[in-house]
Amino acid sequence: MRVSVIGGSTVTDAEYETARDLGVELAERGHTVVCGGLGGVMEAVCRGASEAGGETIGILPTDRLGDANPYVTTPIATGLGHARNALVVMNGAAVVAVDGGGGTLSEIGYGTVYDRPIAGIGTHDVVGVEACGTVAEAVAYVEGEVGTASD
Amino acid sequence: MRVSVIGGSTVTDAEYETARDLGVELAERGHTVVCGGLGGVMEAVCRGASEAGGETIGILPTDRLGDANPYVTTPIATGLGHARNALVVMNGAAVVAVDGGGGTLSEIGYGTVYDRPIAGIGTHDVVGVEACGTVAEAVAYVEGEVGTASD
Amino acid sequence: MRVSVIGGSTVTDAEYETARDLGVELAERGHTVVCGGLGGVMEAVCRGASEAGGETIGILPTDRLGDANPYVTTPIATGLGHARNALVVMNGAAVVAVDGGGGTLSEIGYGTVYDRPIAGIGTHDVVGVEACGTVAEAVAYVEGEVGTASD
Amino acid sequence: MRVSVIGGSTVTDAEYETARDLGVELAERGHTVVCGGLGGVMEAVCRGASEAGGETIGILPTDRLGDANPYVTTPIATGLGHARNALVVMNGAAVVAVDGGGGTLSEIGYGTVYDRPIAGIGTHDVVGVEACGTVAEAVAYVEGEVGTASD
Repeated sequence: MRVSVIGGSTVTDAEYETARDLGVELAERGHTVVCGGLGGVMEAVCRGASEAGGETIGILPTDRLGDANPYVTTPIATGLGHARNALVVMNGAAVVAVDGGGGTLSEIGYGTVYDRPIAGIGTHDVVGVEACGTVAEAVAYVEGEVGTASD
Repeated sequence: MRVSVIGGSTVTDAEYETARDLGVELAERGHTVVCGGLGGVMEAVCRGASEAGGETIGILPTDRLGDANPYVTTPIATGLGHARNALVVMNGAAVVAVDGGGGTLSEIGYGTVYDRPIAGIGTHDVVGVEACGTVAEAVAYVEGEVGTASD
Repeated sequence: MRVSVIGGSTVTDAEYETARDLGVELAERGHTVVCGGLGGVMEAVCRGASEAGGETIGILPTDRLGDANPYVTTPIATGLGHARNALVVMNGAAVVAVDGGGGTLSEIGYGTVYDRPIAGIGTHDVVGVEACGTVAEAVAYVEGEVGTASD
Repeated sequence: MRVSVIGGSTVTDAEYETARDLGVELAERGHTVVCGGLGGVMEAVCRGASEAGGETIGILPTDRLGDANPYVTTPIATGLGHARNALVVMNGAAVVAVDGGGGTLSEIGYGTVYDRPIAGIGTHDVVGVEACGTVAEAVAYVEGEVGTASD
């Protein structure tokens, strides 16, 4: 299935590695990563997924495909600015949040609007987010909620 | 100034009255209400503001001006669905949240993205939201943060 | 009624005066101008309308209200880039095009999509556009098609 | 390279076959089809491309991936309604128009805005569109303008 991965565009080394591990795990389990296509968590999860041979869709805020990080396999330009956050969420069957600030919070909100299961790793503690301690736990949670390991 | 008021589309009577009081207070202090133009908190705040002689801008998710609640003085159709939440926030100098679910959470996130002060009355307890006990306190907070009582 | 006025952002003096005359005529007949809020035809029509005491709504491509030309009475920020062209058209009951390039052509297309009458003054010669020789003729055409002189 | 194919959602049998042939030709020459993801020309070009083993990106107006025609290999939901027309154009390096009404005209306008070469087969006769008599001629035109046969 498609999993939307959301999180901060500036991250610590530890957060980057967590997101990269998440990308590897998702790809190895046959999932496609959907994200905002830029840096930080977005880059890390695409890097992990592409290194594991997976597909990554990067839905960009700008109208230039070249703004995607180098690990995005299918960039989509929107020119919508932050309004593209809605698109990042609606294109996944589930959401995993890693860290993140205001933009990530807007996406968590959209996750609830679109009735998507949301796993969180070190992110906002708000209603609708299942706090998970590890990447494996987060992936297991969203797989269980959606009821399928791949599409 | 313009104040974006966000909140649930289905509300209790008490929440409706709070939002209506907020509309009255904002209008009496010379502010324009910006909201999503539909029901619940959106209708209540527009009703209060218009009853007090104020202006209200309703930024609709649909492409039909007729979908605005009857208290919107300037409806704006967008056809963007939930992505219009970004527009509701960016068109105000400050944000007041009353109650609310996922859509409101997405707007609180956008408030942080756009660096707007956010007052909350009975809404999500998340970083960036100043919890206020009364309408007067919420209006005083956003006025103080923006540094002006009207534009 | 609301009339969407579309046209080039860079214009000759003659085109600027035509658009300004159009703004005066629309305001004097009780209509509100809707436009893209920036320069050229957009500025000229807002200038004419505001000089005649009318209302003007400027739907901006950026997320900054300050980008509106000084004659916009109600600026609306969108942050959508060129995708905001759809909003310019859907918020009017009719369209008048003056001059214009690709952006104007996209808006004429949206006029057909949203089933709006379209009057054209020195603009693209395409299906759906009623070519008019004067401002008075253009205003009379859209009033006749919508069936009302004001809302 | 990516080629945005635009055209009517209701077509004659002859137009459908032209669009299907276009999809075959684009796929055989290594190009990816970008389109609006729905019926008519959009379905036909995706069908041709997928039958020839090519990739197709369908950028949908709705927020449901399931609305894509069955020949779309990568559906992208937007929920933006007709405003998604801008996205269809900006995601291709060139545009080919087959037949089409107002929506197609809006996309031709965006093609000029985004400075894309536009080949037309039986479509609007407007500035910026190179009228082509055959699928082969249209593909040759956009390849020549972009200066590459594949990406």
